[in-house]
Amino acid sequence: MATTLITADELREIWGLLAPADRLESFGFLPREEAEDFFLELRSADQLALLLGLSPLPPAVRRSWMRLLAPDDAADLLQEAEPEVRAELLGLLDASTRKEVSALLAYEEDDAGGLMSPRYARLRPEMTVDEAIGYLRKQAQTVETLHYAYVLDPRQRLLGVISLRELFAASGNARVSDVMHADLVTVEEQMDQESVSHLLARHDFAALPVVDAEGKMKGIVTFDDIADVIEEEATEDMQKMGGSEALDAPYLQVSLGEMIRKRAGWLSILFFGELLTASAMAYYEDAISRAVVLAVFVPLIISSGGNSGSQASTLIVRALALSEVRVRDWWRVVRREIVAGLGLGSILGVLGVLRVVAWQQAFGTYGEYAFRIGLTVGFSLLGVVMWGTLAGSSLPFLLRRLGLDPASASAPFVATLVDVTGLIIYFTLANLLLGGKLL
Amino acid sequence: MATTLITADELREIWGLLAPADRLESFGFLPREEAEDFFLELRSADQLALLLGLSPLPPAVRRSWMRLLAPDDAADLLQEAEPEVRAELLGLLDASTRKEVSALLAYEEDDAGGLMSPRYARLRPEMTVDEAIGYLRKQAQTVETLHYAYVLDPRQRLLGVISLRELFAASGNARVSDVMHADLVTVEEQMDQESVSHLLARHDFAALPVVDAEGKMKGIVTFDDIADVIEEEATEDMQKMGGSEALDAPYLQVSLGEMIRKRAGWLSILFFGELLTASAMAYYEDAISRAVVLAVFVPLIISSGGNSGSQASTLIVRALALSEVRVRDWWRVVRREIVAGLGLGSILGVLGVLRVVAWQQAFGTYGEYAFRIGLTVGFSLLGVVMWGTLAGSSLPFLLRRLGLDPASASAPFVATLVDVTGLIIYFTLANLLLGGKLL
Repeated sequence: MATTLITADELREIWGLLAPADRLESFGFLPREEAEDFFLELRSADQLALLLGLSPLPPAVRRSWMRLLAPDDAADLLQEAEPEVRAELLGLLDASTRKEVSALLAYEEDDAGGLMSPRYARLRPEMTVDEAIGYLRKQAQTVETLHYAYVLDPRQRLLGVISLRELFAASGNARVSDVMHADLVTVEEQMDQESVSHLLARHDFAALPVVDAEGKMKGIVTFDDIADVIEEEATEDMQKMGGSEALDAPYLQVSLGEMIRKRAGWLSILFFGELLTASAMAYYEDAISRAVVLAVFVPLIISSGGNSGSQASTLIVRALALSEVRVRDWWRVVRREIVAGLGLGSILGVLGVLRVVAWQQAFGTYGEYAFRIGLTVGFSLLGVVMWGTLAGSSLPFLLRRLGLDPASASAPFVATLVDVTGLIIYFTLANLLLGGKLL
Repeated sequence: MATTLITADELREIWGLLAPADRLESFGFLPREEAEDFFLELRSADQLALLLGLSPLPPAVRRSWMRLLAPDDAADLLQEAEPEVRAELLGLLDASTRKEVSALLAYEEDDAGGLMSPRYARLRPEMTVDEAIGYLRKQAQTVETLHYAYVLDPRQRLLGVISLRELFAASGNARVSDVMHADLVTVEEQMDQESVSHLLARHDFAALPVVDAEGKMKGIVTFDDIADVIEEEATEDMQKMGGSEALDAPYLQVSLGEMIRKRAGWLSILFFGELLTASAMAYYEDAISRAVVLAVFVPLIISSGGNSGSQASTLIVRALALSEVRVRDWWRVVRREIVAGLGLGSILGVLGVLRVVAWQQAFGTYGEYAFRIGLTVGFSLLGVVMWGTLAGSSLPFLLRRLGLDPASASAPFVATLVDVTGLIIYFTLANLLLGGKLL
């Protein structure tokens, strides 16, 4: 493929579809400047693959690529590498960057420490605004971003922050300590990336300072890391809620074997759950053999429970993820969901009765006990939808309370849970309403 | 509630749980500076409610709150207001802001034009870097953010862009035109916010310039608007994929009636779809009455199809939303999914056969045709899972192709679609394998 020239934009379009060797070849056709931009946009795993693919080239070439990366991005790339490769790639960096990157590698990838960049702009509190601007111009070559400047004391403790805009707007001979914000929003090194992203999104800041337990400044987490985190976390949650493991990579870049493995686990677990329906059905086999008409409504009833459960669990899982509700709100939420379930169940229950009555009027399908059959179907729908709504809304709270991921309360998981109970509700009501008549 | 003092952080915690009147009262307890920060963080609808709640106060007080808002945020707030209120609130702004806000109100809320701020920093190409920095200091009071400065010609056409960091790092007597980037990423006024957010996230920019058809600069869309968009779009997609309409507001702020309405629509549509299962089951009623054992496996088989369909549709809907796959990749994707379905179906099929064989060995449950029953269950599972995977992966492409939202291919929708076909597959195979024997 690609023996003709290719543009960076064309390559972006087809990147996901290319085999590794084709990627390397196509990448080689880009002019150096475009290639650099392209390289910096890639995910860490792809950057690593390119670097390793370039290994037959002289070390100087690989070094030049490795040195393009900011320390936090270099650390991300090295996280992806095998230990022996990691040491070799680390050796390509200059001494000061190597020190920064090694420090970052000590953090968990999903922590604030693992996301942060140590290259932030710093000021002293006693400087004037004019001095501060001059000082920042000297730092501009080495910092990663210049949205904010951080005011530190001699022991590196964070005293305040000021945005470039505010610094520009301040009078030139004011002191930095008088114009900075001393009421700071900071994050700790170990804060997980999801919490960091909520904090940053809530305050609309371009960056947040990361400090250690003593209040010493360690680095900054910037909005661009966070946009990726928000998208990544939403993707993980969605994939889990659809009933598979999170893919952890773009769809087309997951090998077929890996794809099957990530989906077979949950599908098999759910299958074992569903086996209970076979046992439940076997338990009611006698009733079914006496009134086959009961079997006719089984899929309708259990699916309605599953659907209402999917709705409820999805809404609650997302509300928990966005911190719109917390575990201690569970009773408030469950109370609402019971009322919602009652409303939704009544609607479907009435529709179910109408279906039976209509067919009876039109075709006489259900014989002399048509009305009782209709009531059985209607009340079962009411019960099953209420139960589905209740189970679907409680399960995410229960999982969070147990320290598990609420997103595991997937639509298929809730549906499976509701299926067995749905059968029990249905056949119990049938016994009550049709016992001694049809049964 | 709240007759004691409350802090802004405490109020943030409980905000979602408070009734409008309590919100207003608690808000009134905050010191002015904290109240201002708090006000600016709120969603537009909440800001509007507070402003209207403050209406008994002198107009000067309301004016001071209204004037806190940047033009794009003021426009968002006014979008939420009734027409007569809108005119009144617009009148509270100073003349120049009123003009800016009126211009923004002409755009669709979800377009780049509706998100953008007209208060960006501008430079002339012929300035030196030192002059540019001095010029930006003059603008700092009036611009919203200062991440980038935009270089315009006398007719307001956008020539280039430079970040503050780059400007600081450049030599003081270089010309702006020599240090700026002329290869620009711009967005058009009508581009929808989802596309803008992908563009911004891909390039890791803090802001993107919005230009009209003639290349004239209209405003900037900044990262903080985009973080909200990413989260909002993911929430909408998830809620749709869970089988309800998007709530368009935090869970606890949706009234119970509204909540039922948003969920009853899809639930009823799905119910009508599920009614087809009752018709399909009625069609096979004879077969069931001859071999009740067939009914026993109905929930197991249709649920397995639904679960595999949910997995497939969720993965594809998300991959489409992230542009990881496009409509023209559909054949590549569907081919993969057929293989995945074959693999997953084989796993569940084997498990199904083992279940029947195990029960037969242990309890003799299924009589002389146990092996044929096992095969019927096993092959049905294979067929249903393959069909679920195929339907779940194709449907999002089909919806996108028809100009509809792929996220409508919700887990419950796919499950319902697969239920009816699952029954047909199962009873057809039963006829083939058990006809003349058990049937």
